[in-house]
Amino acid sequence: MTKPAVTYELIKTCKQTGARLGIVHTPHGSFETPAFMPVGTQATVKTLSPEELKEMNAGIILSNTYHLWLRPGNDIVKEAGGLHKFMNWDRPILTDSGGFQVFSLSEFRKIEEEGVHFRNHLNGDKLFLSPEKAMEIQNDLGSDIMMAFDECPPYPATYDYMLASVDRTTRWAKRCKEAHQRPEDQALFGIVQGGEFEELRKRSAEALVELDFPGYAIGGLSVGEPKDIMNRMLEYTTPLLPANKPRYLMGVGSPDSLIDGAIRGVDMFDCVLPTRIARNGTLMTSEGRLVVKNAKYARDFGPIDPNCDCYTCKNYSRAYVRHLIRTEETFGIRLTTYHNLHFLLNLMEQVRQAIREDRLGDFREEFFEKYGFNKPDAKNF
Amino acid sequence: MTKPAVTYELIKTCKQTGARLGIVHTPHGSFETPAFMPVGTQATVKTLSPEELKEMNAGIILSNTYHLWLRPGNDIVKEAGGLHKFMNWDRPILTDSGGFQVFSLSEFRKIEEEGVHFRNHLNGDKLFLSPEKAMEIQNDLGSDIMMAFDECPPYPATYDYMLASVDRTTRWAKRCKEAHQRPEDQALFGIVQGGEFEELRKRSAEALVELDFPGYAIGGLSVGEPKDIMNRMLEYTTPLLPANKPRYLMGVGSPDSLIDGAIRGVDMFDCVLPTRIARNGTLMTSEGRLVVKNAKYARDFGPIDPNCDCYTCKNYSRAYVRHLIRTEETFGIRLTTYHNLHFLLNLMEQVRQAIREDRLGDFREEFFEKYGFNKPDAKNF
Ligand SMILES: [Zn+2]
Ligand SMILES: [Zn+2]
Repeated sequence: MTKPAVTYELIKTCKQTGARLGIVHTPHGSFETPAFMPVGTQATVKTLSPEELKEMNAGIILSNTYHLWLRPGNDIVKEAGGLHKFMNWDRPILTDSGGFQVFSLSEFRKIEEEGVHFRNHLNGDKLFLSPEKAMEIQNDLGSDIMMAFDECPPYPATYDYMLASVDRTTRWAKRCKEAHQRPEDQALFGIVQGGEFEELRKRSAEALVELDFPGYAIGGLSVGEPKDIMNRMLEYTTPLLPANKPRYLMGVGSPDSLIDGAIRGVDMFDCVLPTRIARNGTLMTSEGRLVVKNAKYARDFGPIDPNCDCYTCKNYSRAYVRHLIRTEETFGIRLTTYHNLHFLLNLMEQVRQAIREDRLGDFREEFFEKYGFNKPDAKNF
Repeated sequence: MTKPAVTYELIKTCKQTGARLGIVHTPHGSFETPAFMPVGTQATVKTLSPEELKEMNAGIILSNTYHLWLRPGNDIVKEAGGLHKFMNWDRPILTDSGGFQVFSLSEFRKIEEEGVHFRNHLNGDKLFLSPEKAMEIQNDLGSDIMMAFDECPPYPATYDYMLASVDRTTRWAKRCKEAHQRPEDQALFGIVQGGEFEELRKRSAEALVELDFPGYAIGGLSVGEPKDIMNRMLEYTTPLLPANKPRYLMGVGSPDSLIDGAIRGVDMFDCVLPTRIARNGTLMTSEGRLVVKNAKYARDFGPIDPNCDCYTCKNYSRAYVRHLIRTEETFGIRLTTYHNLHFLLNLMEQVRQAIREDRLGDFREEFFEKYGFNKPDAKNF
């Protein structure tokens, strides 16, 4: 058997927490883990250029199979020479399977063994997505990491529903693996489901590990459950996954959850949170959450975050950013998006440094204290 | 009398056309003319950073007194240290007087000798703008070039209406000069009005020249009149203005009119056209107007303009830009805005080079032919 397109190199484990420092190697270069992946839904990380993402040391970005399938169409991206060339990004790309959008954006949907019937969220047209179709699209996009097509069950779901769903997701994962046409330069990751049920997480993980994917995602978390349940599920699930493969926690991007996920052995994260809240003028700072639209910043000529050295904080004031957000100027959203992504990418660099120095637990305490997560009324996003 | 804050240096006159090559010196540096000024209405040139404007050699930008008065308020900009510091732009800035917005955006307005009563276009609040108030706001903003508060008469207007309006604009210009508090570091330009009436253009120009402003704008053109009338009015008006002061044609930004304005002795231009059409996906190229949303570009992997070396054209395809515009992605508007402004700024550099070489007439013919302006059905913007 040939070497998979994507491999994981474990550098060290934090003595204080067990968090993993590693490197993921891909056909478009390597990136250090734990890593946060900015989301570029429609082949663009909203408002930013690829050069800006590199300036802030983004090692890998995520893009969305469902959206690119609809517009411009995977055939066009393929003809352009693949997604990297199309969007002018030469570092690694992970594409999701489209499953999440099918289950979250479409009003009508019918799940069958073959796949899912649903309606295009833009114009209502009937569409059908299956494991084979999700692979075909992702093979056309040419992402470095592809995700298996899974069912994203509702939250909360009953044990019986979840059991059937987990087994279907496993059967679909197998079909994805068989349909995948480019294993030599694209790696397919399986997705562990099972909701809040440890027994089903185990059942899912074991079946997928049996299929020997080059990496594994943990899905069905950060869907509305309390944070302690997410942490418990992670603690239970990551040890079931092989130590020599990367682990990816889907849809997580709040600073506390990134740190707590890393502590539980997660290597990769993605979330629209930093870019979505930026468009509304909400910022993550070293001193906590900052809503720049608030009147109190009208005459505040200091930077968004006094401890940040990003482009936004070096050159612009809270008063100016507030003005741009209030007047709905695009450049304001550029500035807030830049800062938020810089903040999270810089946080992950601090997390990696803390692992290197076996003090991620201490770092967590300091960060939580400063950010305000330890307050009884801590407001997250 | 002290030297004005802004001076004009005539470098040479094109032997073929009479167009002027010059340099305008301001407290924030100098720029070559003929020059096009990108418009930054709300203290930002929509979607772009100051660094990007410098990359494309923007020598001066324009911002809007009326909009900044309403949001964030001239007091806040003053407190920030002035508009340059507020928006992180250290090159020259010209601010308009607010007159144009009062006459174009507000539904209700009442013109009196003292000034204009009107309603805020955002919330309907009653407002009053006068020569003195326009000066106060612009003194707070700290722009290098301020514009006198003028009446922008409707088009078309009768001779009698225009006569009264021209004389009022002259009286207001005088009051502006008297109210101006910072002549040592801000230059106040007068605005010649008079519509399509040569006699009134003369009356306006002579009265304003009498007041000895450091520069003159030509207003009330590009308001809907045929292009040959605009050209005729320019031919008639510019010789009435002193050769040692810069001349600014307001609201003109289509490539043909920029060249034809330069040929008639204009030194400065501004217009929202390149940025406004960019947001709709319409591009200016060396081969003419290009509407990138058109289906024929869906699989066109060439650059927007094969003869352009801007950031957009070097890195992205028509297919990609089309995708971004269709999906309403901000980065698409960044890319089209970048290209259009680069195109006009580069056009002005070509115009200046042609003046240097006494061949602006030849350049005009070549450019018009290639762009398609010579075609009988030539579509402008
Ligand atoms: Zn910052
Ligand atoms: Zn270009």
